Amino acid sequence: MSKQQRTAIHQLLRNADFDLGGDVDTQRSLLEQMLTAHPLPDDVRTSTGDLGGVPVVFANLTGVDASGVLFHLHGGGFALGSATGSVGLAMSLARLAGLSIVTVDYRLAPENPYPAAVEDAVNAYRALLEREGGAANIVVTGESAGGNLAVELLLAIRSAGLAQPAAAVLFSPMTDLTVSGESFRTKATADPNITAAAIRTRVADYLIGTGVDPADPRVSPVFADLAGLPPLLVQAGSNEVLLDDATRLAVRAAADNVPVILDVVPDVPHVFQAFAAVLEEGTAALDRAGRFIRGHLRS
Amino acid sequence: MSKQQRTAIHQLLRNADFDLGGDVDTQRSLLEQMLTAHPLPDDVRTSTGDLGGVPVVFANLTGVDASGVLFHLHGGGFALGSATGSVGLAMSLARLAGLSIVTVDYRLAPENPYPAAVEDAVNAYRALLEREGGAANIVVTGESAGGNLAVELLLAIRSAGLAQPAAAVLFSPMTDLTVSGESFRTKATADPNITAAAIRTRVADYLIGTGVDPADPRVSPVFADLAGLPPLLVQAGSNEVLLDDATRLAVRAAADNVPVILDVVPDVPHVFQAFAAVLEEGTAALDRAGRFIRGHLRS
Repeated sequence: MSKQQRTAIHQLLRNADFDLGGDVDTQRSLLEQMLTAHPLPDDVRTSTGDLGGVPVVFANLTGVDASGVLFHLHGGGFALGSATGSVGLAMSLARLAGLSIVTVDYRLAPENPYPAAVEDAVNAYRALLEREGGAANIVVTGESAGGNLAVELLLAIRSAGLAQPAAAVLFSPMTDLTVSGESFRTKATADPNITAAAIRTRVADYLIGTGVDPADPRVSPVFADLAGLPPLLVQAGSNEVLLDDATRLAVRAAADNVPVILDVVPDVPHVFQAFAAVLEEGTAALDRAGRFIRGHLRS
Repeated sequence: MSKQQRTAIHQLLRNADFDLGGDVDTQRSLLEQMLTAHPLPDDVRTSTGDLGGVPVVFANLTGVDASGVLFHLHGGGFALGSATGSVGLAMSLARLAGLSIVTVDYRLAPENPYPAAVEDAVNAYRALLEREGGAANIVVTGESAGGNLAVELLLAIRSAGLAQPAAAVLFSPMTDLTVSGESFRTKATADPNITAAAIRTRVADYLIGTGVDPADPRVSPVFADLAGLPPLLVQAGSNEVLLDDATRLAVRAAADNVPVILDVVPDVPHVFQAFAAVLEEGTAALDRAGRFIRGHLRS
């Protein structure tokens, strides 16, 4: 598809002020500006609320009778990002499957290190489960660190004996907090904006004072036994230092008898679906994800 | 999906006389009996012929104006199987994308070791390319050892400067003739009918007298640089000792900027799509593969 679009986005990210590994206050504000720079489509209605005591944003499409709910955990290295800032991306997927969404304002590090975010995700999911009267029409999604939290949520659900969602969709998930993927080296030049150093900074924030080993499967799902998880779709770009975080999670899932589709798009960056408005590959990937979701809601 | 169907197929394969690693003459005959036990659907018309001097079987559907051609390389460890025997599987996929098919009777080992099969595949493909006037409506497919040959064909096409097909679909490809995948150990009990010993026997046949190292990328595409290959769909079952052959090929492709989808179905065996008539997972996987093909022919 369009090389011109890919080049433009690469340059934009390369030159952006945003730095995943930068000062938390500065970067929170920059990321929020980036994510809310474009208004939501006119047909998206949002409202704030809470689920199980956890602040969330609800959103749906006017005139659409939602056939289920997308439960979304935003990215931002466990330290940045917000429920509001992630409505755009989550809804761009949800609309393709006719779903409403819930995006979760889980507590952020370093103020609230592990396990605050996972606890918030579990509490909100449990409340959603009760509200929906079951999990058959819930889909869990997350990007980047939110992809990590999404898988950790599924593992926590499994431990707690709660019903698994119909499926989960992970965009460029960060799955290995030991930062050991070979792609941190092989894709360092190709990746326009994420570095191993940035990930390490955010991992330090997430685990600060906890004594939890970054290789602990409770924070690095790539080292977890994934048996019993619902069907997973893992999408990533090949221009990501986090590529191996995505591929190894999928391979682990396959080995553990989890239905899994790994979908890697060449020459696009971390969470390239966020650029769908100006990137054909993003639109096409969201279409495949929407079809994946519809397939699992039908059954 | 149906646990009963999966169990029945597992038992059938576990108890079958067919042995991939057995005596070549006996097993050729057994495999051919298995593959042709059920008649082809009434709407399939076949004819034999040749492409570039290589014997092939052509098949199409009566009343369907084919929108392209599926070029299929059969499995059987490089030593067993035939163009005729693979029409059923290849056509079950081709009909979902409205394609006609060509299945290739490449020369078999040990009588004709490497590179005979790859040479035949290249010669037949080159002739098809001329006949079709281009590659835009050709899709290359293969299962098991045929998946190996399919990727080696794409690499040979790349070296020769021939046009790549629109896409390639690989069912349970055998990609590593060093037999080094971890799944040879982890899936030994789960796999009903394929063993590392059987693979080693057939690899010995394929490389007999050639002096070619099993780790050579010309026979083990998992060790090749895959850059420039067309979009790949790799499907495998989680009950396969060859699972890692599939996952590692996909991961290699992703790292090399090839558009790739890895699609692993839990609790089903090697080339489970061949059992689609009695296995829901097989039908669903073929549906996804058909959609993948249609997506790449459209563009």
